[in-house]
Amino acid sequence: MNILKLGLPKGSLQEPTFDLLKKAGYRIRLGERSYIPSIDDSEIECLLIRAQEMGNYVADGVLDTGITGRDWIMEYESDVVEICSLLYARGGFVPVRWVVAVPENSDITEISQLRGKRIATELVNYSRRYFEERGVHAKFEFSWGATEVKPPKLADAIVDVTVTGSSLAANNLRIIETILESTTVLVMNKKASENPRKREKVENIALLLQGALNAEFKVGLKMNLHISKLEEIASLLPSLHNPTISHMKDENWLALEVVIDESRARELIPVLKKAGAEGIIEFPLNKVIY
Amino acid sequence: MNILKLGLPKGSLQEPTFDLLKKAGYRIRLGERSYIPSIDDSEIECLLIRAQEMGNYVADGVLDTGITGRDWIMEYESDVVEICSLLYARGGFVPVRWVVAVPENSDITEISQLRGKRIATELVNYSRRYFEERGVHAKFEFSWGATEVKPPKLADAIVDVTVTGSSLAANNLRIIETILESTTVLVMNKKASENPRKREKVENIALLLQGALNAEFKVGLKMNLHISKLEEIASLLPSLHNPTISHMKDENWLALEVVIDESRARELIPVLKKAGAEGIIEFPLNKVIY
Amino acid sequence: MNILKLGLPKGSLQEPTFDLLKKAGYRIRLGERSYIPSIDDSEIECLLIRAQEMGNYVADGVLDTGITGRDWIMEYESDVVEICSLLYARGGFVPVRWVVAVPENSDITEISQLRGKRIATELVNYSRRYFEERGVHAKFEFSWGATEVKPPKLADAIVDVTVTGSSLAANNLRIIETILESTTVLVMNKKASENPRKREKVENIALLLQGALNAEFKVGLKMNLHISKLEEIASLLPSLHNPTISHMKDENWLALEVVIDESRARELIPVLKKAGAEGIIEFPLNKVIY
Amino acid sequence: MNILKLGLPKGSLQEPTFDLLKKAGYRIRLGERSYIPSIDDSEIECLLIRAQEMGNYVADGVLDTGITGRDWIMEYESDVVEICSLLYARGGFVPVRWVVAVPENSDITEISQLRGKRIATELVNYSRRYFEERGVHAKFEFSWGATEVKPPKLADAIVDVTVTGSSLAANNLRIIETILESTTVLVMNKKASENPRKREKVENIALLLQGALNAEFKVGLKMNLHISKLEEIASLLPSLHNPTISHMKDENWLALEVVIDESRARELIPVLKKAGAEGIIEFPLNKVIY
Amino acid sequence: MNILKLGLPKGSLQEPTFDLLKKAGYRIRLGERSYIPSIDDSEIECLLIRAQEMGNYVADGVLDTGITGRDWIMEYESDVVEICSLLYARGGFVPVRWVVAVPENSDITEISQLRGKRIATELVNYSRRYFEERGVHAKFEFSWGATEVKPPKLADAIVDVTVTGSSLAANNLRIIETILESTTVLVMNKKASENPRKREKVENIALLLQGALNAEFKVGLKMNLHISKLEEIASLLPSLHNPTISHMKDENWLALEVVIDESRARELIPVLKKAGAEGIIEFPLNKVIY
Amino acid sequence: MNILKLGLPKGSLQEPTFDLLKKAGYRIRLGERSYIPSIDDSEIECLLIRAQEMGNYVADGVLDTGITGRDWIMEYESDVVEICSLLYARGGFVPVRWVVAVPENSDITEISQLRGKRIATELVNYSRRYFEERGVHAKFEFSWGATEVKPPKLADAIVDVTVTGSSLAANNLRIIETILESTTVLVMNKKASENPRKREKVENIALLLQGALNAEFKVGLKMNLHISKLEEIASLLPSLHNPTISHMKDENWLALEVVIDESRARELIPVLKKAGAEGIIEFPLNKVIY
Repeated sequence: MNILKLGLPKGSLQEPTFDLLKKAGYRIRLGERSYIPSIDDSEIECLLIRAQEMGNYVADGVLDTGITGRDWIMEYESDVVEICSLLYARGGFVPVRWVVAVPENSDITEISQLRGKRIATELVNYSRRYFEERGVHAKFEFSWGATEVKPPKLADAIVDVTVTGSSLAANNLRIIETILESTTVLVMNKKASENPRKREKVENIALLLQGALNAEFKVGLKMNLHISKLEEIASLLPSLHNPTISHMKDENWLALEVVIDESRARELIPVLKKAGAEGIIEFPLNKVIY
Repeated sequence: MNILKLGLPKGSLQEPTFDLLKKAGYRIRLGERSYIPSIDDSEIECLLIRAQEMGNYVADGVLDTGITGRDWIMEYESDVVEICSLLYARGGFVPVRWVVAVPENSDITEISQLRGKRIATELVNYSRRYFEERGVHAKFEFSWGATEVKPPKLADAIVDVTVTGSSLAANNLRIIETILESTTVLVMNKKASENPRKREKVENIALLLQGALNAEFKVGLKMNLHISKLEEIASLLPSLHNPTISHMKDENWLALEVVIDESRARELIPVLKKAGAEGIIEFPLNKVIY
Repeated sequence: MNILKLGLPKGSLQEPTFDLLKKAGYRIRLGERSYIPSIDDSEIECLLIRAQEMGNYVADGVLDTGITGRDWIMEYESDVVEICSLLYARGGFVPVRWVVAVPENSDITEISQLRGKRIATELVNYSRRYFEERGVHAKFEFSWGATEVKPPKLADAIVDVTVTGSSLAANNLRIIETILESTTVLVMNKKASENPRKREKVENIALLLQGALNAEFKVGLKMNLHISKLEEIASLLPSLHNPTISHMKDENWLALEVVIDESRARELIPVLKKAGAEGIIEFPLNKVIY
Repeated sequence: MNILKLGLPKGSLQEPTFDLLKKAGYRIRLGERSYIPSIDDSEIECLLIRAQEMGNYVADGVLDTGITGRDWIMEYESDVVEICSLLYARGGFVPVRWVVAVPENSDITEISQLRGKRIATELVNYSRRYFEERGVHAKFEFSWGATEVKPPKLADAIVDVTVTGSSLAANNLRIIETILESTTVLVMNKKASENPRKREKVENIALLLQGALNAEFKVGLKMNLHISKLEEIASLLPSLHNPTISHMKDENWLALEVVIDESRARELIPVLKKAGAEGIIEFPLNKVIY
Repeated sequence: MNILKLGLPKGSLQEPTFDLLKKAGYRIRLGERSYIPSIDDSEIECLLIRAQEMGNYVADGVLDTGITGRDWIMEYESDVVEICSLLYARGGFVPVRWVVAVPENSDITEISQLRGKRIATELVNYSRRYFEERGVHAKFEFSWGATEVKPPKLADAIVDVTVTGSSLAANNLRIIETILESTTVLVMNKKASENPRKREKVENIALLLQGALNAEFKVGLKMNLHISKLEEIASLLPSLHNPTISHMKDENWLALEVVIDESRARELIPVLKKAGAEGIIEFPLNKVIY
Repeated sequence: MNILKLGLPKGSLQEPTFDLLKKAGYRIRLGERSYIPSIDDSEIECLLIRAQEMGNYVADGVLDTGITGRDWIMEYESDVVEICSLLYARGGFVPVRWVVAVPENSDITEISQLRGKRIATELVNYSRRYFEERGVHAKFEFSWGATEVKPPKLADAIVDVTVTGSSLAANNLRIIETILESTTVLVMNKKASENPRKREKVENIALLLQGALNAEFKVGLKMNLHISKLEEIASLLPSLHNPTISHMKDENWLALEVVIDESRARELIPVLKKAGAEGIIEFPLNKVIY
């Protein structure tokens, strides 16, 4: 197989992407001020590229595959194949939202009122398309950042990215509409995706990345129980998980093991203890693949 | 159920408390300069409060429950219910000590010699009670910190908190008596503790926090062994732990699994290896609940 | 047994050594600006010592045992017993190399051309011996560091330590020969090594350190499978690993567990999934002892 | 003369006070974690003390003189002699204000409405006196800091220190009254102030500190002008400043020199240039003593 | 007069611009995360804006005047009035250069060879105009930064900004042509510039900013000399500087004062001393206005 | 003239040396991780070298001149010409001292008692000569730093560098003798010093460096006074300073200007004010050349 050229996103997605790749099993090293990370897989060559530029370099074939935000793929209408979506973004393990926001004390409550107004945004193309599909023509101006401080002097409204909305609120802006929810995506060049070996390689990377993402929210749980309590305790466990059963040295005892959502563990542990489970231990996971 | 109002300690206990809550399964986020952490449990509302002030806010019912040092509960004689003690403090997983210290070259060797002297401390009330119960009247002065630099010019003695005593020694002070050992405690408002649902909720939190604390000092241990060595190797394991036994593909071999103290693992592993255990692995735990 | 005096290397090896000891199960604390770390084993006393000085302090019996680089042992020809080699160094889990380097544009391609030249190095003795055993007499000058900037003005060549060679390349130097590959070693005083209890203690430390190093590159893998697929899936697993087999509540299903190289997990997981393994989880390990 | 014991304020006033003393001509050095700064005047001994504690240590004679905030002198009614006020504080070269603040959406608009309410503050005594002199009895509670986050849950109102009010506004608090404006002061022990040599020494320190403070806002200005323009240009200069006049080598030219407010320089320089002044230079000053 | 709306450049020019304004006599304060700096001149309102966006906001009249790089004015062909150029930029008190660079080992030596090639740059419009005026059509691609790492994979050549060229060299790029030298400029809205009071205000700001820039490279020099040496020593001083002459208490001595280039002081001082000047002092200047 | 090769000291002397050169009028820039600082004098080439190595490189002619500590010149008995001494060192504008120190509780009070003992030091050669000239033979061991923690386990005494002695005291060491006081020196290669142009160049650098050092402790002082007070006020000024006298616009007033020690200004200003001086200003100096 030829080398697979993989683009990694420089900027706010860089650190979470590197962390995720590490959990997926790749050791990546980036020299100071370098743009060519090394990776411990001789079939892959990495390049660090701005998330905004990723889609076009993948579409052009300069890269075979890349990790970036779906928002930038849509902004530049990059002609690529989406292999999978990865639920993490700048703000954690949740999507980011691109929203239309206006000054808190403005009368504007829907985008049709923005007809003819100045709207500052880093997402000029997508925003214009979204507005025009709804029959609203406005003046979209590219903003180099700090977009949230522009209204009301430098813009009538903005289209900006947010997770919790708190930075918008702190600048006295009110959200009137969400025009795009975006997560990270793994995309692939069209022609490269028709090469079976490259395609399989990228799908395996996707499998490992998703396995690592799943593990962020899962834990393993083991407990000991008297053989007489098996049915009762098994019935408390999430129905989809068929627990593993081991024997203990004392033959009247069994050990049960399941994988559950970390957020369920808080509720389940006291209940299991009350039902007679003993020696309950919770242990961390690296990857979970369904 | 009404919302449970939980106080978290601001200051030196803040970071270890947040870490422990995370291990217990709670995701807490604190905005910069905010005092209202968010928590991913819709039945709980958090408030960040100085450890010194916690007891009274819980006693008054402003908070239902709170995490603070037992020293501050005793200083202010806060009328609260102690749900459990949690063995961690400023200095790690050990209690802190409040000690009486005097200049190294002073003649004083016991507290009775401090009668009438000036004593600087952040723990004025408890210290005065402790001295007076022993018939020693002295002049206790509140100190805003850096107490250890006050003798001999600004005080004759101090009552200060310490873990290893090294900061006292560095200031040429000699410890003459320990008047209080203190760990972190989870306390509850009296009236709230009579509400069964709130009480159960707090006890479940206690169970998870203690489970996370236990895991700090425990590890899982697995090993493979020939079936003929089961009795010998099982006898080496801590008697209270009934090991889990699994089969291996080769039917003459078994796999044993136990949870042991991390500090025992160091000694046990060489012994187990010598007794014929193979492929010994040690793995980390998130929580251990007896 | 008398106390075992253990030297820990100050400088670039300090942080990886403390990390490794922690994984091996020792809790070490180092006060700011202190040179006497505390350790939670009452039979051990630690001392923080420059790696360069370690060998002689162990040889002299000031220390019973110490962790340092093999390079410094060879430089000073310290008369010590090497208990084991530990595959980590300044640059990660790989050996460092001491190399002879000359200016990129020099005509020199082998060390015999350095006869009579000035060679700057921190490793004067070993380098001189190496050259003289090959019949090359040169003028070796001790360098206090920043050796790589000395040629061509202050030296004709250097002997310097490197992992990737990039710092040498950045200073326009060309490597012409590797004269020493070095990893970290655990060494022991000769006389102390004849004391059976001290010797056993040190060998147990070695066992735990190597167990922790092994775990850097290993993970645990579990998966569920239909009983009919046992042979096929077992055949995919590394042949030396006899997997552990547990039953599941649904009797037609089994759970398999193995320990494998982390770098293999990337390839194996997609293959196992394709072969019918379900609910594959990967979990981290603290120690692996063969 | 005996040594003059001078207290310097630890905390937010520390850095501006050290800067000012340096400009006044004193070289002060403070070892890390030390509380006894050295000073290059053999007649002075310094001690670093919390601003809150300064007044009483000066009143008691532990210190002869000290620099602190007037607020803390008034809080503790320390019986000291105020030598001079120094116009700087935590927020720059302006006074700080202690204000009464209530939740933005509260109905309270004047302090009489706070009768019987809970008021949190670090300035308990002064606040209580201020309120009681106006016939308002309320419950004042000492706050360990972060006072601005206490209303409405933990207090009905607060008395807090502010410069711009922005931190209060950010916590949704509304100022209803200023109860104290405070600057830094140089205070002296009563008895020490009757010792003529000590008194003179402290007054000289005051003169130098005020000279350094004055220089913060003054600059020197020099310019060359044709002899024929002397009257016109002199008339443009601030009337109180009798300019210094020097000759130039060309006898038809004069050089004028004045000291002016830095904030005036911005306006004056263009005007002077228009009036024919040439080679205008502005130079910095260390001290200005009227 | 109406308020003058002044734009200050966010980004790499921000810190040197704030420093320069401070030397010019303006006290500017910028709250954390704010974009509206306060200034101690009630006739001015500041706004922090990306240097790239400044020109258009000034041209549109959103701002009356602004400080930015001339490069961005030319890139966007902003229709503004240039009040003065200010000789400082990202790299110190020198212009920056926008250069065409190609891989070191490429055959390209002049821009005509770039016909049809891919050129990455942040300065797309200006670059395209420059090339097309010289009859060279190429494919200019906007680069979001880190432009210097793009050749040869992602671009055939780049147009990038540089001071010393070292970052280009470090990325193995060779400069083939400089297409723009740029310094900072103070620009004004056309219509605002016809308002006499606004125009005068901006010109006065320009005068003070240039006065502060001049002072970066000038020092004052004073010396004492015997009256007999006046002619000789005066002849050594730069001819344009007519020295100020003062008398000394001893009537046979004079004091001379001049302002000279700091870089001349190094050479002049030894010469003046040799010629008999005594008590030579050099003093710093805040502003120098010719 | 050939280029003058100037060595600058890397390490603790680096920052104060660069500061001093800047005050002397040289603009030096050092790229990150570079060892070849650029200087704005085309006749000088700089090289950054460890202070310990400087003497020999100057003696060998690799460098024409260099700035280092006199201690290292004496340690290595470098055969160089000392051009001037510069009163600054690691600890400020005072010499450093090399002292012999022993454990606080040792019986040793003079160096003769160290006969045959182990002495750890970075200054092995000088120390041995010093001891042997006094008839004391001891075992000197080179120490890589942190020398002060070696006694009593690793050494019986040390020879270490100190300014205030506080680090020694903190390690429970007692100074028994000072064996060397050292300041920074400007040294020159013997042969280069016979080249008149190089010699003059280096002497001019020395003049400027000393001028800048002098200015650290000097300030300018100006004041206005009524003509009737000239004699009285002039008599208060340091006798060696013949003040400059200028007229004021009001002919009954004079302006006096002198340069004095900064440390004298503190005392003189109150006295001058009392004697009738008005409008006293103090201004900073860059250089003072006698």
